[in-house]
Amino acid sequence: MAEVDALVTVTVCTTCRAGAPTDAEGPRPPGARLHDALSGALPDGGVRLRTVECLSACSRGCSMVIEGGAQRWTYIYGDMDPDTHVPAIIEGVSAYAATADGVVPWRERPEIFRKQSIARIPPPQSTPPKEAAE
Amino acid sequence: MAEVDALVTVTVCTTCRAGAPTDAEGPRPPGARLHDALSGALPDGGVRLRTVECLSACSRGCSMVIEGGAQRWTYIYGDMDPDTHVPAIIEGVSAYAATADGVVPWRERPEIFRKQSIARIPPPQSTPPKEAAE
Repeated sequence: MAEVDALVTVTVCTTCRAGAPTDAEGPRPPGARLHDALSGALPDGGVRLRTVECLSACSRGCSMVIEGGAQRWTYIYGDMDPDTHVPAIIEGVSAYAATADGVVPWRERPEIFRKQSIARIPPPQSTPPKEAAE
Repeated sequence: MAEVDALVTVTVCTTCRAGAPTDAEGPRPPGARLHDALSGALPDGGVRLRTVECLSACSRGCSMVIEGGAQRWTYIYGDMDPDTHVPAIIEGVSAYAATADGVVPWRERPEIFRKQSIARIPPPQSTPPKEAAE
């Protein structure tokens, strides 16, 4: 169980259209393109990429979740751009995966993670952290 | 482990001020009042209430999370009003706790849960549900 719990999971909404009509024909949705761009690009070992059809954060798409077992905080991010944000996302996920509790020091987070957080959730069995506003 | 995983947890942000200045002196923050109102009011057995100092969803406060172990979807709700929404929250949490996967049929959810969802997160080991937009 400990090994499974320590796994970091990145969940990308593949139906996110970043403001485009949801019934539009045409190019691949931005959320699906974000998933494509992250496939094979995240740190080897300990980081799993998965898809979901809707995170119910449609007004903030592209959206994604980073979580990591029983000891880590979960973060939900929005307004991700598959064309420009992939390097920063990889950087942010790598930093997250290197922590035990999921709380990367504020200044070490990519700007998109500092500014485009939708919400965070404390680990299942936690007490509030000292850095309450982060 | 199965019993622990089946526990439903409601996490209320006690620092949420629902738009009021965060450094304001004065009455108890709306988030703390929401927690107070839910204390002892949620279904007995299987539902745990906890506090967090910030869910980083400040623009949507009062905010709260409902989660329930490895098999259930997690939901984050915002714009909760401690003066008017408590009965609906209790109703919604009860319905959630009665499910195995956390997905209450759309029409059976309280209106505030249908309209004030900030995001949802699939269970750790899931495939996307059929009702992708819920």
